[in-house]
Amino acid sequence: MSKKITSQTKDYSTWYTDVVVKAGLADYGPVKGTMVIKPYGFALWELVKDSFDQMIKETGHVNAYFPLFIPKSFLAKEADHIEGFAKECAVVTHTRLKSDGEKGIVVDPESKLDEEVIVRPTSETVIWSMYKKWIQSYRDLPLLINQWANVVRWEMRTRLFLRTTEFLWQEGHTAHESADEAKKETLLILELYRQLAEEYLAMPVHTGLKSESEKFAGADFTYCIEAMMKDKRALQAGTSHNLGQNFAKAFGVTFQSKDNKEEFVYATSWGVSTRLIGGVIMTHGDEKGLRLPPKIAPYQLVVVPIFKSEEDKKAITKFINPVLNELKKLNIRIHEDWRKESPGFKFNEWEMKGVPLRLEIGLRDIKEDNVTLSRRDKDQKFEIQKSKIVKQVPELLDKIQSALYKQALEFRSLNTHKTKDYEEFKEIMKNNGGFVRCGWDGDEKTEKAIKDETKATIRVIPFDENPKNISCIYSGRPAKHEVIFAKAY
Amino acid sequence: MSKKITSQTKDYSTWYTDVVVKAGLADYGPVKGTMVIKPYGFALWELVKDSFDQMIKETGHVNAYFPLFIPKSFLAKEADHIEGFAKECAVVTHTRLKSDGEKGIVVDPESKLDEEVIVRPTSETVIWSMYKKWIQSYRDLPLLINQWANVVRWEMRTRLFLRTTEFLWQEGHTAHESADEAKKETLLILELYRQLAEEYLAMPVHTGLKSESEKFAGADFTYCIEAMMKDKRALQAGTSHNLGQNFAKAFGVTFQSKDNKEEFVYATSWGVSTRLIGGVIMTHGDEKGLRLPPKIAPYQLVVVPIFKSEEDKKAITKFINPVLNELKKLNIRIHEDWRKESPGFKFNEWEMKGVPLRLEIGLRDIKEDNVTLSRRDKDQKFEIQKSKIVKQVPELLDKIQSALYKQALEFRSLNTHKTKDYEEFKEIMKNNGGFVRCGWDGDEKTEKAIKDETKATIRVIPFDENPKNISCIYSGRPAKHEVIFAKAY
Repeated sequence: MSKKITSQTKDYSTWYTDVVVKAGLADYGPVKGTMVIKPYGFALWELVKDSFDQMIKETGHVNAYFPLFIPKSFLAKEADHIEGFAKECAVVTHTRLKSDGEKGIVVDPESKLDEEVIVRPTSETVIWSMYKKWIQSYRDLPLLINQWANVVRWEMRTRLFLRTTEFLWQEGHTAHESADEAKKETLLILELYRQLAEEYLAMPVHTGLKSESEKFAGADFTYCIEAMMKDKRALQAGTSHNLGQNFAKAFGVTFQSKDNKEEFVYATSWGVSTRLIGGVIMTHGDEKGLRLPPKIAPYQLVVVPIFKSEEDKKAITKFINPVLNELKKLNIRIHEDWRKESPGFKFNEWEMKGVPLRLEIGLRDIKEDNVTLSRRDKDQKFEIQKSKIVKQVPELLDKIQSALYKQALEFRSLNTHKTKDYEEFKEIMKNNGGFVRCGWDGDEKTEKAIKDETKATIRVIPFDENPKNISCIYSGRPAKHEVIFAKAY
Repeated sequence: MSKKITSQTKDYSTWYTDVVVKAGLADYGPVKGTMVIKPYGFALWELVKDSFDQMIKETGHVNAYFPLFIPKSFLAKEADHIEGFAKECAVVTHTRLKSDGEKGIVVDPESKLDEEVIVRPTSETVIWSMYKKWIQSYRDLPLLINQWANVVRWEMRTRLFLRTTEFLWQEGHTAHESADEAKKETLLILELYRQLAEEYLAMPVHTGLKSESEKFAGADFTYCIEAMMKDKRALQAGTSHNLGQNFAKAFGVTFQSKDNKEEFVYATSWGVSTRLIGGVIMTHGDEKGLRLPPKIAPYQLVVVPIFKSEEDKKAITKFINPVLNELKKLNIRIHEDWRKESPGFKFNEWEMKGVPLRLEIGLRDIKEDNVTLSRRDKDQKFEIQKSKIVKQVPELLDKIQSALYKQALEFRSLNTHKTKDYEEFKEIMKNNGGFVRCGWDGDEKTEKAIKDETKATIRVIPFDENPKNISCIYSGRPAKHEVIFAKAY
């Protein structure tokens, strides 16, 4: 397979798919809209998952597992919720196949279910049906439960990692005694999402509130982290919902409070998904392919030995192994590429796969007691003394991690516009795109009008907004909020 | 909730469900046949999962993720496979709900799929449809891929962890150049399963081959690990299948061999599931509840402080914290139970939950520079000097791990019978049960006759069989194999 990819500037969307497929991250599954996450992509996801799993465990959350199947009636118990998910539900209606002499295999009509079952698009309803059994008193609270699971939302337009019928995610579902505690939880998780995005994925994000029209179906408030991709479109990378008492009321979940009253439980839910992988690709990728932040790179260092004979191999191994062993003790993730392909082929492949550091080692290097290191984040190649590798590799990985973040932050700054003029706003959305930070009168009609005219939506009402003395970009009325508009994935 | 459980000897089946529910391992989901794995049960599963995940990664396997949904037609491509799974398939037929003014929410008939989609009961078919794309040459082989996933087999009779409509498992799917390599892979995995069962779960297993009638639908050979539960029934705890070229032929997966021939690829698949948790419960559990092997216990040591006042708490904390911190550095998993409930209540609860070691500490102990330790594997309680705790706790955990294995092995020996007499065989199966090790003529009819008359099946043809000079327990003909019969879960 040719490793040549479409140019990012020429056709961003094709560039994206090329990178996903040719870097070996994912492939299309046989059922329309489904995705196969290939080993390299899954290793990346495992590192993201493990990082976040540790964060939530350190803050007192525990993992559990709830069923894939939800009775159809459950979904309808919360009015907004069913409204939000009804149009994309996979529905199980039968439980048996049978052979039909002629046509082959058919669904056995006698196995029809009395009540159809939904494949979870999200698990609020099934989880709150269980919480009803588990929560009686304030002593049972808080419940801080998370699950890592697959969910299904039937999609017509597929984009690997970004929009697929099935995707992997974590969904936290917590139950609390008070509105205040639920709010604190929602914000704690949002902060963990920010850390995950910025410190691990090197992906700068805005944090804040969603507008009413963009919030989760069933939430009182939805908070989010919102990132800018390299085509200047926004990616919603994680959401944390304050569900108030909506699901507790829908499922009748009450508790006896400390002062002996029967009250409805307060809820939150929050999730990040394999979509984050799409975010990493589109935040850092370049014309050569992926660029992975070291903290989540399956291989942080790839070793490309330059050899011809078995004797060369032995000499190189003898020279470099002690160094690699020291690095492994420091938990550096290393891959040695001893295949027969040419060095040039290998360089291209590992650049495509975004490995942060490459170490080249040949016979000449051994003589000079050197190796060559290349940084993927910038086209930089330099020789370093063997004795300095063990110290420098971890330092370089830290530097690459910071540099990728800094580059992305600069890119976002450069493409964020502050304007008061709607004509300019339209011009920006029509031509180069980017984030526009401006005033909004708080009216859903304004939001809709802007969306209809420009395709841009309010991505977030950022925590650091300053709506004083500014006016709405559209209506000219005093702004209720300072918001960030962009076209989004 | 009362923590009283049914006696094991009185009603083993109710004892089992009581333990699962009251130790907080799992609960029933709202859709019939589904299970919720609660946080304590899930923590146990995570430890099992992580242990095995490490083993397979160390032997060169990688994780990936394949879609939940499989086109109906795929399942039918391998004749035995469809035969084996057709009767328990969840079938997705529609992708949308809509509101119906009167009845509430109904399935939108206009969203009917052209081809129905199956929720994976296992993933051979979807994976081999992808392998067809990924494999061209011997250079692409071996493919050593595993996935951790949920699968669905529609069940009528539910038993938590043992038989549920949806369960969690790992499924390995490997592709090889030669029959020999596939066989070696199958056996390597079987050996890892044995290690997982015996060294982590402290559950002795027989390893060997399944008979033709018990093998996997689509396999040439199925190897298994088979354990004895405390009611003397057998539990199939893991299977490793040599699939030969069956799936390669069904999906047309060929490769160019080293000597430039077009050949069908050789395959294996193998899995262990959350059923292992059922195995742990039924191998070690006693009248007080769970007994967990230290290596997979979410908490290895529970600390029960005996205190009245805040002052007591401070004194105890000051006394014991340095010790606990040392233990944490050794990666001992510790839970401190500072709730207000009585010590007796807590002892019962942690015994129910099977924590291997309990440390009691009160004011009297501080004076004497002592603590009290209790081993869950035997009713043994003893005082030890504070200065010896850090050294002794890890040693005791090792001892408990070995002791649980030894007890289970003795139990199995005690309940394994060698007999040549079918009347005695029937007597055993009718009364006390257990494993019967005896000759079998290799005839499926014999196997079926025995099953019909006694409900016992051939659990395994063990690797250490010695069929020479013995005759078939049923037909009296010369034995083809020495096998192990038992009633099974």
